[in-house]
Amino acid sequence: MDHQTVTQFLGLLVVILATAKLCGFLAQAVGQPTVLGELVAGVLLGSSVLGLVNPEVEVVHLLSELGVILLLFAIGLETDLRQLLKVGGAAAAVAAVGVILPFALGYGACRLLGLPNLVAIVAGAALTATSVGITARVLSDLGRLQEPESQIVLGAAVIDDIIGLVILTVVAGMTRGEEVTLLGVAQIAGVAFGFLVATLLVGSFVVPRLVGLVSRMDVPGTTTILAVILAFGLAWLAETAGSAVIIGAFAAGLLLARTPQAREIEHGVTGLGNFFVPIFFVSVGAAVDVRVFNPLDASNHSTLFVGGLLIVAAVAGKFAAGYAAPWFRGRRNVIGVGMIPRGEVGLIFAQMGLSSGVFDAKFFSAVTLMVMVTTFMAPPLLRVLCPPGDAAWIPPEPDGIEEFVMGE
Amino acid sequence: MDHQTVTQFLGLLVVILATAKLCGFLAQAVGQPTVLGELVAGVLLGSSVLGLVNPEVEVVHLLSELGVILLLFAIGLETDLRQLLKVGGAAAAVAAVGVILPFALGYGACRLLGLPNLVAIVAGAALTATSVGITARVLSDLGRLQEPESQIVLGAAVIDDIIGLVILTVVAGMTRGEEVTLLGVAQIAGVAFGFLVATLLVGSFVVPRLVGLVSRMDVPGTTTILAVILAFGLAWLAETAGSAVIIGAFAAGLLLARTPQAREIEHGVTGLGNFFVPIFFVSVGAAVDVRVFNPLDASNHSTLFVGGLLIVAAVAGKFAAGYAAPWFRGRRNVIGVGMIPRGEVGLIFAQMGLSSGVFDAKFFSAVTLMVMVTTFMAPPLLRVLCPPGDAAWIPPEPDGIEEFVMGE
Repeated sequence: MDHQTVTQFLGLLVVILATAKLCGFLAQAVGQPTVLGELVAGVLLGSSVLGLVNPEVEVVHLLSELGVILLLFAIGLETDLRQLLKVGGAAAAVAAVGVILPFALGYGACRLLGLPNLVAIVAGAALTATSVGITARVLSDLGRLQEPESQIVLGAAVIDDIIGLVILTVVAGMTRGEEVTLLGVAQIAGVAFGFLVATLLVGSFVVPRLVGLVSRMDVPGTTTILAVILAFGLAWLAETAGSAVIIGAFAAGLLLARTPQAREIEHGVTGLGNFFVPIFFVSVGAAVDVRVFNPLDASNHSTLFVGGLLIVAAVAGKFAAGYAAPWFRGRRNVIGVGMIPRGEVGLIFAQMGLSSGVFDAKFFSAVTLMVMVTTFMAPPLLRVLCPPGDAAWIPPEPDGIEEFVMGE
Repeated sequence: MDHQTVTQFLGLLVVILATAKLCGFLAQAVGQPTVLGELVAGVLLGSSVLGLVNPEVEVVHLLSELGVILLLFAIGLETDLRQLLKVGGAAAAVAAVGVILPFALGYGACRLLGLPNLVAIVAGAALTATSVGITARVLSDLGRLQEPESQIVLGAAVIDDIIGLVILTVVAGMTRGEEVTLLGVAQIAGVAFGFLVATLLVGSFVVPRLVGLVSRMDVPGTTTILAVILAFGLAWLAETAGSAVIIGAFAAGLLLARTPQAREIEHGVTGLGNFFVPIFFVSVGAAVDVRVFNPLDASNHSTLFVGGLLIVAAVAGKFAAGYAAPWFRGRRNVIGVGMIPRGEVGLIFAQMGLSSGVFDAKFFSAVTLMVMVTTFMAPPLLRVLCPPGDAAWIPPEPDGIEEFVMGE
């Protein structure tokens, strides 16, 4: 029993939770989504400022994974599968354009800069990512998760995550010098999409019966723990089957959303989420090195220039994707902005580029800059496009009731 | 990002939570406290049976520490400090006898067996431990936490934990061959007790104001997260100040129990507790090697004999301590039985004896056997002495209401 480790771990948790909550509160006080505050908390605690949180420490990484799993599970719980399928065509179009266009723009920009083919491919791949976590959390903070625009972004981001996995697997093979065959790509894609379809089909039959059975057990909190087991279990199964943990967690949420115990589960999981989810966003923020931002340091100029080009490609590509479904008569700019943040998925690509030796340190910083800016610009932009409060908006009522509701 | 690690971690969590809940349900079905089921789940998952959970893996150990911290925090939240102080004299008497008697009996038994002085001292020290976690959880499962007997056991167990820390520090010094001075012992004891007193004095002033301030913030779940931060923060402070994490967590609970937000916090922390606490009990169970139980293996006979002697000393010493406060007119047998389980505290002593070379493997197994038997015998014994159901007992009411309450 190493008491030193336990002490450090407790100190770390206290610092992460306290800073995240404080910055989240300050963000809200200036009219921004709380998730932006949590990301800033991560930057402050990360290696480039205070150096207190290292997201690559195993236990921090594992807890942050539980955070993103619980986040996607909670988002799934609030999502109506039928409504999601109704916007499925639009979501697929947005996802497809949101992958192809940023890739093409990023690849083109890199080739114009005279970079080698493989560097341009990995950089283009990093631009295809969409961080469903960031956008979903912002829309949830703003009380907008049920609107058709949000459902399209959510659906497209999930499809993007699956496509991203395929690209990641293929690109990882390329960085190792492996040959890429069309059959290999089709196989990876088949597994990734097949997992979601199979899980939803089998789960629709099994999950309601299982929950009904367990909710009759007279042990307090059992239904919530069953839900957590299902979320972690499907996340584990997804990862094992070659898909991604968050796809499994989202599927678990979708399946439980249709059971009569959905509200009870949502309530029980919220407490866990309040603890784990900020650890995820702080981790994402802590992976960012803000020193490459400093324009006074001449050695940053080329990084800032390359990063700036990548940012233009990244923003233009995803924003245009918002207009990929012309038959959808909603606010396409909300969809476009919602697709912008790269978040942790972009960082995974950047990290892979660096560790495989395809990126040098400067180019890695440029890609990180793109991830950082796209991640941080989306929450305030969404906030401008969708002012909050509509969810709590109360229809005009006779005097007494209105005053009662607005009073406290 | 090591996907292998994440996958393994998710699989491990699913196995731990599912087995703990299933065994807890089965234990309840046969009329036993659920914690007994969770301990059995740990034994099944531990190295001696299935080998799926190793409590020494860092992340398992850290999550189980969060479990015992949240458990003691929740127990503190349900404890009325004034009521605890009212039984303080009885608790102190029970704690003192419960340390001196088992130590003397254990030391004597070892010396009679011809074991060296240092071995007898460390073994005696292992017998002084009380696992407040096990007993508190059983009493809580049975809905008995508010009764005077429970309060005395709780108070005595907390005092025992502080004394245990002092003994642990002193004995650890002895196993390293250091000289033990009276001044040194007094200093360690002063820090350990001083922490609790200072925390409660300063905290009574600061905590209600802090909670009042934070509960006015309009971020959902903030009060609960503040409570968690306070629990982990005081646990961290206690450990850093030379006391134990669970003392800090218990103090945090006591302080928050007196705020108007206590019920809200209790409700919010329950969700976290349902997740982390079973990990703690599964860890305690998984540290047990049941193979030393096998009487058909002749090489176990001397271990079983020595272990049997230690069990007699351990049970007699703590049970007698229940009668150490003759002025208390409650059920002293409940107090005596409540003090019996050694749990994880006893295992820490045993582990220290083994790793310092004072215990050989066979004697370590005998001490482990004592810890195991005392830990597993207390829940069913308490269950026999205090049948559950009184907490949910409804006073006779006119027909309609009674039927309504009993109906669903």
